[in-house]
Amino acid sequence: MTRLVGDLNPPTRLLCGTGPTNPDPRVLRALAAPLLGQFDPAFTAIMHEVATLGREVFQTSNPRTFAVSGTGRAGMEAAIASLVEPGDRVLVANCGRFGDLFVDLAGRYGGRVAQVTAEWGRVIDPGAIADALKREPAKIVAVVHGETSTGMLQPLDEIGRICRAHHALLVVDAVVTLGGVAVRVDDWGIDLCSAGTQKCLGCPSGMAPITYNDRVERAIAARRTPVVSNYLDLSQLQRYWSPERLNHHTLPTSMTYALREALRLVAEEGPPARFQRHRRAGAALKAGLTAMGLALFGDPERRLPMITAVHIPAGVDDEAVRAQLLEEFGVEIATAFGPLRGRIWRIGLMGYNAELRAALAVLTGMEHVLRSRGVDVPLGAGVEAARHAYHEGIDSPAGA
Amino acid sequence: MTRLVGDLNPPTRLLCGTGPTNPDPRVLRALAAPLLGQFDPAFTAIMHEVATLGREVFQTSNPRTFAVSGTGRAGMEAAIASLVEPGDRVLVANCGRFGDLFVDLAGRYGGRVAQVTAEWGRVIDPGAIADALKREPAKIVAVVHGETSTGMLQPLDEIGRICRAHHALLVVDAVVTLGGVAVRVDDWGIDLCSAGTQKCLGCPSGMAPITYNDRVERAIAARRTPVVSNYLDLSQLQRYWSPERLNHHTLPTSMTYALREALRLVAEEGPPARFQRHRRAGAALKAGLTAMGLALFGDPERRLPMITAVHIPAGVDDEAVRAQLLEEFGVEIATAFGPLRGRIWRIGLMGYNAELRAALAVLTGMEHVLRSRGVDVPLGAGVEAARHAYHEGIDSPAGA
Repeated sequence: MTRLVGDLNPPTRLLCGTGPTNPDPRVLRALAAPLLGQFDPAFTAIMHEVATLGREVFQTSNPRTFAVSGTGRAGMEAAIASLVEPGDRVLVANCGRFGDLFVDLAGRYGGRVAQVTAEWGRVIDPGAIADALKREPAKIVAVVHGETSTGMLQPLDEIGRICRAHHALLVVDAVVTLGGVAVRVDDWGIDLCSAGTQKCLGCPSGMAPITYNDRVERAIAARRTPVVSNYLDLSQLQRYWSPERLNHHTLPTSMTYALREALRLVAEEGPPARFQRHRRAGAALKAGLTAMGLALFGDPERRLPMITAVHIPAGVDDEAVRAQLLEEFGVEIATAFGPLRGRIWRIGLMGYNAELRAALAVLTGMEHVLRSRGVDVPLGAGVEAARHAYHEGIDSPAGA
Repeated sequence: MTRLVGDLNPPTRLLCGTGPTNPDPRVLRALAAPLLGQFDPAFTAIMHEVATLGREVFQTSNPRTFAVSGTGRAGMEAAIASLVEPGDRVLVANCGRFGDLFVDLAGRYGGRVAQVTAEWGRVIDPGAIADALKREPAKIVAVVHGETSTGMLQPLDEIGRICRAHHALLVVDAVVTLGGVAVRVDDWGIDLCSAGTQKCLGCPSGMAPITYNDRVERAIAARRTPVVSNYLDLSQLQRYWSPERLNHHTLPTSMTYALREALRLVAEEGPPARFQRHRRAGAALKAGLTAMGLALFGDPERRLPMITAVHIPAGVDDEAVRAQLLEEFGVEIATAFGPLRGRIWRIGLMGYNAELRAALAVLTGMEHVLRSRGVDVPLGAGVEAARHAYHEGIDSPAGA
């Protein structure tokens, strides 16, 4: 066995797919810190700090702010599993794969699911949500803030007001947006917001920051039936994270260290500077791709700064290009799902990689890989346009 | 914020509670390795190695061997969530807190739960399981291999034969035993076995190694109703871990590195040497505690080597002793649950800490802390007895 499995020696990659991104070296160092027992006062102090820093990044005063011990998907499932009872009406704003996931989760937990949909590449009109709620009220409205599958940013403030007016709970997936654009949980009237660690927070995957207000807490407490999941039962997890320290699972110690360091980096940089960094890096990449002659995908007014979706040139093999980019340049970009598979690439500049250097590396690699495959891409134009956009301080339109 | 949350600087602890234990430094270093994308060929090769090494430690040839992306509890819930349908009869062998957890989980997923019980501190008589199955067949028999709450080891081989004879699926919780005593999945007829990373595998918590055979796979495929959980749906997870690489959640990269390194350490040491190390360390600790005048808890024939349960001397404050031990000696031991709270301590010598040095540090600390609180403990007797037992090569009785 020893001979078969050698030393761990991962190759160096610039991770510009949809996550994980490369973490700040400080986050990697935090992972290697010595462990503590889960009820050690030194560790519960760290949990307290994670909650405090979490409230800052979610822009909330919710006491119930902690992290679910699983990936972003686990956070979304914890929300739905804890809130949805059989027969509850759940309205999903669906314009991509993560809207589909909300539909799947709500159905699994017995919800009566209705959808307001938009074409992939567009966002949901808040008026359509209001109309749907007028036709039939819902207990929960589930919305994806940043739809990673299409690269679109869904404005939330108006949806928050609509949900409040219709006495629906607004549940938001902020997996790709938290730490990269503003997520104003309290100001926008988001009742529950769930995220992930491996995107704009710049941490490995494995935990899901979550926050919810007393409306959600009361709704969970008022359930007629018990929550099916034990591991993802928010009513138990909130007691574990509270001073009560209910014994539940054993919190992933090293990942908690990493999340603390990642959140501390957000606080040190300051959210406005961090959001601007993501906007500028995204704008530089978009300018460069356009100058290379590639066409950006989706509604130009709603593009995410941290995920750029771009059409694959006609006749070009999605997988072969990505493999060559990885092998020759050490650069990872992402494929797409469902109807967009083979039609677009998705390029992430998130967290530690939301920098000009990463945009330029992607553009350089793509230029040469595409040229080597016969696509007519001008030499150097992508990098030049990206540098120009960056230094002119041009921001992506979305994500203010 | 920056001023409020300082550098991560966890104090040094010798973790001899019930987990996490201190990992081998190689495992901590693996955590800090650069990240890879989840579909990078270099990362899927690592997943393949985790599965290969997992089969070795589980002593199985099951193709379906991988890790659930959550703690040990998530692995147990994945098993129950994926196998139990409403109305299915589940027989739980229950003699402790993790038996209770199986009862809870099976009930949450709609199982008709029956129990064969024993007093905490004893194990289940296989004949009682046979009798229960004769009275009414069950789809699943759930058994805890090592009951961390009481320090007892449940022999499994006879139970495996009984389950096979009665066409029941044997589901085993090996969270505390895997990597510390033999877990012979194939030889013993275990149909599904689930574990955790933070105990005898000597890794931080956060993943749950799992293995199951084609009987389980067929039972999941034959369900009349869909699995409720998405995150813990084994039918999806097995497709993610297979060459099909179904897109599901984003595997926790750093924890996967750590698990690979931990499993590699098991393979390098070799299971027999590793099990002997756990038995000898446990025997040394037990001899030392006895020489100090403390009374070991539970059935002497069934004690776990890696978790030693010991009665708290009369009049001694559980919590105050543990706090003093942590503060003065930097040594963590664990309290107990439910009926045993305040009555016993639980001391873990697991993975990297299954060594004489750890046993001696615990004994030294306990001796002085108890003496400082007026308990009549002879000076040095615990360490002397432990050293003697260790060097004489006396093994704990259980865990052969």
